[in-house]
Amino acid sequence: MLPRGRPRALGAAALLLLLLLLGFLLFDWRLRGAAALDGDPLAGPRDSNPSDCGPQPLPPPKCELLHVAIVCAGHNSSRDVITLVKSMLFYRKNPLHLHLVTDAVARNILETLFHTWMVPAVRVSFYDADELKPQVSWIPNKHYSGLYGLMKLVLPGTLPAELARVIVLDTDITFASDIAELWALFAHFSDTQAIGLVENQSDWYLGNLWKNHRPWPALGRGFNTGVILLRLDRLRQAGWEQMWRLTARRELLTLPATSLADQDIFNAVIKEHPGLVRPLPCVWNVQLSDHTLAERCYSEASDLKVIHWNSPKKLRVKNKHVKLFRNFYLTFLEYDGNLLRRGLFGCPSQPPSGAEQLQQALAQLDEEDPCFEFRQQQLTVHRVHVTFLPHEPPPSQPHDVTLVAQLSMDRLQMLEALCRHWPGPMSLALYLTDAEAQQFLRFVEASPVLAARQDVAYHVVYREGPLYPVNQLRNVALAQALTPYVFLSDIDFLPAYSLYDYLRASIEQLGLGSRRKAALVVPAFETLHYRFSFPPSKVELLALLDAGALYTFRYHEWPRGHAPTDYARWREAQAPYGVQWVANYEPYVVVPRDCPRYDPRFVGFGWNKVAHIVELDAQEYEFLVLPEAFTIHLPHTPSLDISRFRSSPTYRGCLQALKDEFHQDLSRRYGAAALKYLPALQQPWSPARGS
Amino acid sequence: MLPRGRPRALGAAALLLLLLLLGFLLFDWRLRGAAALDGDPLAGPRDSNPSDCGPQPLPPPKCELLHVAIVCAGHNSSRDVITLVKSMLFYRKNPLHLHLVTDAVARNILETLFHTWMVPAVRVSFYDADELKPQVSWIPNKHYSGLYGLMKLVLPGTLPAELARVIVLDTDITFASDIAELWALFAHFSDTQAIGLVENQSDWYLGNLWKNHRPWPALGRGFNTGVILLRLDRLRQAGWEQMWRLTARRELLTLPATSLADQDIFNAVIKEHPGLVRPLPCVWNVQLSDHTLAERCYSEASDLKVIHWNSPKKLRVKNKHVKLFRNFYLTFLEYDGNLLRRGLFGCPSQPPSGAEQLQQALAQLDEEDPCFEFRQQQLTVHRVHVTFLPHEPPPSQPHDVTLVAQLSMDRLQMLEALCRHWPGPMSLALYLTDAEAQQFLRFVEASPVLAARQDVAYHVVYREGPLYPVNQLRNVALAQALTPYVFLSDIDFLPAYSLYDYLRASIEQLGLGSRRKAALVVPAFETLHYRFSFPPSKVELLALLDAGALYTFRYHEWPRGHAPTDYARWREAQAPYGVQWVANYEPYVVVPRDCPRYDPRFVGFGWNKVAHIVELDAQEYEFLVLPEAFTIHLPHTPSLDISRFRSSPTYRGCLQALKDEFHQDLSRRYGAAALKYLPALQQPWSPARGS
Repeated sequence: MLPRGRPRALGAAALLLLLLLLGFLLFDWRLRGAAALDGDPLAGPRDSNPSDCGPQPLPPPKCELLHVAIVCAGHNSSRDVITLVKSMLFYRKNPLHLHLVTDAVARNILETLFHTWMVPAVRVSFYDADELKPQVSWIPNKHYSGLYGLMKLVLPGTLPAELARVIVLDTDITFASDIAELWALFAHFSDTQAIGLVENQSDWYLGNLWKNHRPWPALGRGFNTGVILLRLDRLRQAGWEQMWRLTARRELLTLPATSLADQDIFNAVIKEHPGLVRPLPCVWNVQLSDHTLAERCYSEASDLKVIHWNSPKKLRVKNKHVKLFRNFYLTFLEYDGNLLRRGLFGCPSQPPSGAEQLQQALAQLDEEDPCFEFRQQQLTVHRVHVTFLPHEPPPSQPHDVTLVAQLSMDRLQMLEALCRHWPGPMSLALYLTDAEAQQFLRFVEASPVLAARQDVAYHVVYREGPLYPVNQLRNVALAQALTPYVFLSDIDFLPAYSLYDYLRASIEQLGLGSRRKAALVVPAFETLHYRFSFPPSKVELLALLDAGALYTFRYHEWPRGHAPTDYARWREAQAPYGVQWVANYEPYVVVPRDCPRYDPRFVGFGWNKVAHIVELDAQEYEFLVLPEAFTIHLPHTPSLDISRFRSSPTYRGCLQALKDEFHQDLSRRYGAAALKYLPALQQPWSPARGS
Repeated sequence: MLPRGRPRALGAAALLLLLLLLGFLLFDWRLRGAAALDGDPLAGPRDSNPSDCGPQPLPPPKCELLHVAIVCAGHNSSRDVITLVKSMLFYRKNPLHLHLVTDAVARNILETLFHTWMVPAVRVSFYDADELKPQVSWIPNKHYSGLYGLMKLVLPGTLPAELARVIVLDTDITFASDIAELWALFAHFSDTQAIGLVENQSDWYLGNLWKNHRPWPALGRGFNTGVILLRLDRLRQAGWEQMWRLTARRELLTLPATSLADQDIFNAVIKEHPGLVRPLPCVWNVQLSDHTLAERCYSEASDLKVIHWNSPKKLRVKNKHVKLFRNFYLTFLEYDGNLLRRGLFGCPSQPPSGAEQLQQALAQLDEEDPCFEFRQQQLTVHRVHVTFLPHEPPPSQPHDVTLVAQLSMDRLQMLEALCRHWPGPMSLALYLTDAEAQQFLRFVEASPVLAARQDVAYHVVYREGPLYPVNQLRNVALAQALTPYVFLSDIDFLPAYSLYDYLRASIEQLGLGSRRKAALVVPAFETLHYRFSFPPSKVELLALLDAGALYTFRYHEWPRGHAPTDYARWREAQAPYGVQWVANYEPYVVVPRDCPRYDPRFVGFGWNKVAHIVELDAQEYEFLVLPEAFTIHLPHTPSLDISRFRSSPTYRGCLQALKDEFHQDLSRRYGAAALKYLPALQQPWSPARGS
């Protein structure tokens, strides 16, 4: 019974009750998700109800810049990082700043890639991994990530002092959701927490996986460091640099090495300073390691956020659900990265360097212009992934020559034969879609001949637009050649077996570079037969020529392209001889690496090599034909581009327009000397010619 | 100043204040999003604050089945629907039931597609659009969607009576988010609302777009019906069928026709019964029509949910942000649909028909088996999109012949020549990725020769796995041939110009089918030269043969494949002559459409045609060589598959295993008669042979 005569107090009590109720409701809502977080961080995912373990946190303020740090070294990790970045960009709605700690190889690849990718609202900073090595190289480590994994430990001291928060990711991560939701979890940190981590989804740190398994110390199952939310400011304040070093040194007194690189050390520090860690919901790092317990997490989650391929077997890991996860990964592996060049809705951002001028130039094009496609293709900036596969350039030699060529998917079959004919370095540009790049990768891996060659550099130029950007491709391959000389070839030619050695000897004997500015001509022939026995020497070549089994290149359709080489003289020649430039000359030549670039305005087919030879002549290169050099063109199905060219008067009209513009440029640069080339440029183009 | 001596009242007042404050906070949160929904539905998107117009509704119960209805007719709309479905499947986390109202063409395409796609947790029901036509054909309509657009009006009476709620989508919709979020908006309907719609994002219904523009009546800007949330139960209760008919009939007294099909009628009904409509946030139907005002919506939304390409220009619509939107569309247009064959996390669902047995068979394979790739490839069920492009089969004729062949991207160049050589119907299977299918589409559109042909059916079989499933492809093309006879050819052959007419005449003269079970042999030749003038008659062919410019097919590498055709006899023959089966015979033949299928176990290269000819012989087909028929193989770059075959003893070993199993099957089916084929099957395979 309530005491009577105290209505006010009663009212107040009722109000208090109501208040408590409402307060409860309110707090229930605010903390619903956090409950799982605040629970025992070491309880298994099942205990903490995984379908609740991804509560909807408030999204971060719209347009807030999010920072992401990744350590990446070498060719293969660079490919992995690109897939990770594609998955991140696909779902993101915020501007991003990527902080990439890279070795020289990864830096060259990723710098070129991001520069040519031109994704709006993405900034990239590079940090030199080699400089960080001394800070971690004293730690003995058995993990497959090597020294680079350990570098995550030194990020607080490496990233800019003003940077307070960063998400750190391993390269073998795939996003299946918006990274901003992960960033929003920073808001759940208490005032002292500094490291957000997901529990390790295996029993590794329990130390019971096998007899005498002695893992590093950890709280319960420990944490996985594939995804880390770092409060850099707090770590710096807490003396992180001393903290982890002290712990690591102490543990290494009794343990021989780290088994899981940085993760062992992070866990040991956390065991000592449990207040530092903020446990994160399990879906933010679903770990598909060999002995994974991740199923406890994902089997009840409706929503998967981040997949972590943390087995050395990667996609080939045994897991009954691996196909599901693999599909997420493959989605981004093969995703057309060009489609990620999209701005953010409602977030104004600085356009990437060069993008603004490009947009303006594109906007000025007239869509009704019959040559619109040409103009557009010329302006296209292709995404470029240099040294797509592992590449070990040979030691620098003064007269070495790199074979330079370009191709697309339909010429992959040439690569093995080319490797057999040219034992020296090659720089090849491949024009591929993202999906084709993966087919190419599998093709090389399946070929013992190709897999054995470390001196062939493959540069992927991603497809965009309807016309084959032949000269842009040649320029990419040329720019990546590392030897002092280059042999500018085409993919459907096989050089004489002796050519590589012979060229180096000739360059030395002729004293090129220092004394003479010369282009060495490699005479070109062709066979019309698929079944063809390659002549081992000039003598055999001449015999085949006399027997009608070989022809000089384009003998039937366009003899003018190679006539100035003077095949009759070549038959008898014992020493290199000079020839003069004549209209339409387009020999295959060996020149110094710093030779003029190809004119990128020539896209599709026609005039692309002729213009380059004009340029060499204008710059007063001397043309010297080598008496023992030869290369032979093999037959192939005509490309789609060339079929189109042959059937279209518009195409030929546009080519004439390009030639006119090319000559205007020549006149501007060489004045009256360019008059020499005018008749050649005004000649109408023969559709039978081809490339 | 506070009155003294009333501490209790003071405390109560303070509590009240706190209570109000908390209550306010709580309700502010609960209703934040709903405010935009409850506001004036006709206010422009800007007025209703578009960045708020997509509040986070509670997600629908996990694993709830969502229903989607789409009206689809014809080849082109079928392609559109597939892109829409891909975008929906990519983001969905719920089981889906698709209700497809289709004409016969779309049904054939989509039924085959979904049957072979085998996406878990997707059910598809078909409804016959032709049966619905009488219900809407009385309505004069000027919209490009024709009669089919109007069929959305009759969905409440067409879909199952027990179905209460459905999302109705136009075919030109792309999802950029999870459809469950849209479904969740049903929860916002009041007790009487039955139709959820987004405001029309143009001034069309304001009637001020041009002089004398007289639109149908609508509330303000009206609503767009590209995305509809339908409470079917309520509409049925409200007498929807009478309702819309009455309104339409009345309006058609003064208006000549609907301009925007069903949308005009929906708007007229809503104007009369505004209580029916539930306005939806603008981001759920961002309309890129010609005079769109959508920018008001998307420019401030951080999150785009659904894009609607509701201009007749579709992707070519002029809009300064169209590139952004197009990237969403292209993402799914080119997305590998195989990757969507993934189950839902945590939602148990009936596996698609056949999927369980397939999974079991795949699970039983031994990954260590050197022929694992073969076994896996044989079991692969490829997604099939029949009649990918518009196709108009010629009227049925008793002796008509369809040319049947298969190809991949690297043989597209053959299509034009093939069309010139074969004026009759063709059924071609193309083995492509989703992205390549789009390249193929552009290739056909750009070719006047191909675009002019309506009697060539292109069936896309989507790539999956490392080996070319040559016989599965042949079977797809064969199954889709509509004439009584088929010419089983290969893509790199060009038939004699007269062959189509000659075959039909021969079939008639020989009385095939009714009287005789015969395979008509078309003798095969080859040229090794690209530049080759096709012989207009047998006389010229023989002259080229004698001159060494032509050979009988595989004369150098594998004469046995065609030797039984007896070329010497063919030279002189004036009438068809019978030949006997001999080991390794693999002629190109004309047979009735109901001939035995190819054995799908032969994947990659080798024995695929030989086994089919064995099957014909076992079924006692008589082989008749036609004296005036011939076909000529053109040279081409060797395919990647064949290069692999030639270099791999494992590959050849696996092929021998396939042959052994093939023979076991033959024995099972034909008993002792199969003994005849045993020696042929035990012969080792020659790597030089090829296909």
